[in-house]
Amino acid sequence: MSKLAMIAFGGNALLRAGEKGTYEQQLANVERTCASLSKLLDKGYDLVIGHGNGPQVGNALLRHEAGKQQFGLESMPMDFCGAETQGSIAYMIETGMEKVLRRSGLDRRVVSLVTRVEVSPDDPMFQHPSKPVGPYYSREEALSRPGEWREDAAGRGWRKVVASPKPIRINNIELVERLAREGNIVVTVGGGGIPVVAHGDGYRGVEAVIDKDLASALAAVNMHADELYILTDVPKVYINFRKPGEKALDSMTLAQAREYLEQGQFGEGSMAPKVRAGVMFVEKTGGKCVITEAGSLGDASCGTEIIP
Amino acid sequence: MSKLAMIAFGGNALLRAGEKGTYEQQLANVERTCASLSKLLDKGYDLVIGHGNGPQVGNALLRHEAGKQQFGLESMPMDFCGAETQGSIAYMIETGMEKVLRRSGLDRRVVSLVTRVEVSPDDPMFQHPSKPVGPYYSREEALSRPGEWREDAAGRGWRKVVASPKPIRINNIELVERLAREGNIVVTVGGGGIPVVAHGDGYRGVEAVIDKDLASALAAVNMHADELYILTDVPKVYINFRKPGEKALDSMTLAQAREYLEQGQFGEGSMAPKVRAGVMFVEKTGGKCVITEAGSLGDASCGTEIIP
Repeated sequence: MSKLAMIAFGGNALLRAGEKGTYEQQLANVERTCASLSKLLDKGYDLVIGHGNGPQVGNALLRHEAGKQQFGLESMPMDFCGAETQGSIAYMIETGMEKVLRRSGLDRRVVSLVTRVEVSPDDPMFQHPSKPVGPYYSREEALSRPGEWREDAAGRGWRKVVASPKPIRINNIELVERLAREGNIVVTVGGGGIPVVAHGDGYRGVEAVIDKDLASALAAVNMHADELYILTDVPKVYINFRKPGEKALDSMTLAQAREYLEQGQFGEGSMAPKVRAGVMFVEKTGGKCVITEAGSLGDASCGTEIIP
Repeated sequence: MSKLAMIAFGGNALLRAGEKGTYEQQLANVERTCASLSKLLDKGYDLVIGHGNGPQVGNALLRHEAGKQQFGLESMPMDFCGAETQGSIAYMIETGMEKVLRRSGLDRRVVSLVTRVEVSPDDPMFQHPSKPVGPYYSREEALSRPGEWREDAAGRGWRKVVASPKPIRINNIELVERLAREGNIVVTVGGGGIPVVAHGDGYRGVEAVIDKDLASALAAVNMHADELYILTDVPKVYINFRKPGEKALDSMTLAQAREYLEQGQFGEGSMAPKVRAGVMFVEKTGGKCVITEAGSLGDASCGTEIIP
């Protein structure tokens, strides 16, 4: 049986900071990121792709706000905007991945699922919303709107903060696994998944951001994936990053990873959630987790491996 | 074996003209439309759902324009916006359909695929763009932008017109059929599908609108569906609509349908494409096609049947 790998693309790998983010640029970035999977494809891996949507859902929220002000359109909440980005990003990944497959002479299908992810309404994070999202407002404007608001440290204004609850169930994940094990390349849990909570006789969306690495790690655990690759923009995980004694790690054990996390070695908005997601996967499955940049994916010494 | 039915939801059944289109309203509309499938579900049908996105992609284009003017964001083209609406509408359909299933005590999965639909770059419709889309502009603004532009008859300004090419291939349709025949309710060809043309070693998106009834009919043909239901906001197809001799049709033969089409009995922006889609399906498969309103779906005398 082929090995099954879950790959978590960063939202920044698709829409880069510093770029204007034209459609052509985004398509080129997506294609480059897809091409980084070539070595795994050549080795015959079954693949499932999760992806971030930080910059994209941010832009969607801005567009909804602008559409309201300029054209009087309804401004839709975050779960709706997240669903929009699942559609548009998956479309670009399908486009890019197909080109990569065709160049490699591989006849594999790419399938993208709209994916809701259940969170608990009792998740303690709902009491501590901390993820800033959407447009900046003046103090008065902000505080007249529903939700929690926080002033930006750089003085750009006030911004809504939402919770980042833990993913507890990924919709249709058994189906994702089956499709992947048949050789289809499956795109799922876009942006960490559309966050929903059980409500009445179904589910309803909530304003929240599920960490996409944690959602991808949960998907990998549920699918009994052999390997989890968390892509970022540095080749390896560092300790003492940008400080004296900086060191790139080829590997770290679960115990070391936990110790580094406790020491605050990894940035909270960047590397720490990736390491936590990797720890969760390795702990629960004993599988292989590598944190690395897209460019070196599949190389023998690529990235930082978390080992049991 | 269960019967397989393809259902084409109208974009207006989800976002109604005259309503403000709040999220709650849209969710309620979607749920009501999903509930109209209850009789087919009770009869054990396998179901695939296609849906329109006219009002939704219109709003998306406005939001992209507003986001550009207000926040300097890139304004994305129509294929990208169409992909966005596939994500958001599928999410709402999953939410509504699950509630309907749960109330009916049915344990069936809802699966939504992001779906590209291939059109030919040589489609003659590309020489005759006729579908007005997106914001209104002044004459000077409009003519300084790429694309074809036309002045609105009601004097609201100039608007881009895009082609409505014929769908020739629906991506992953074999997979959609298989999932549906396993009992999953599959959402696909949202908005008629994201229009793409073969290009280099892959596909690229084009600015176009694929008729969602025609795309749904092609999906039904490809899947060898037994029945095709095209939902609209009138209970039956009429001849001499709103004129002397107005008559609701219980059925029409293929020959009659073609004759009525030739006589111009059906509105080009409304009923004519539905009848054409139905004719195509019945002609190619000998299956049953019914054009009706959601509310009477599954009733014995529901709608207008096109018969071979």
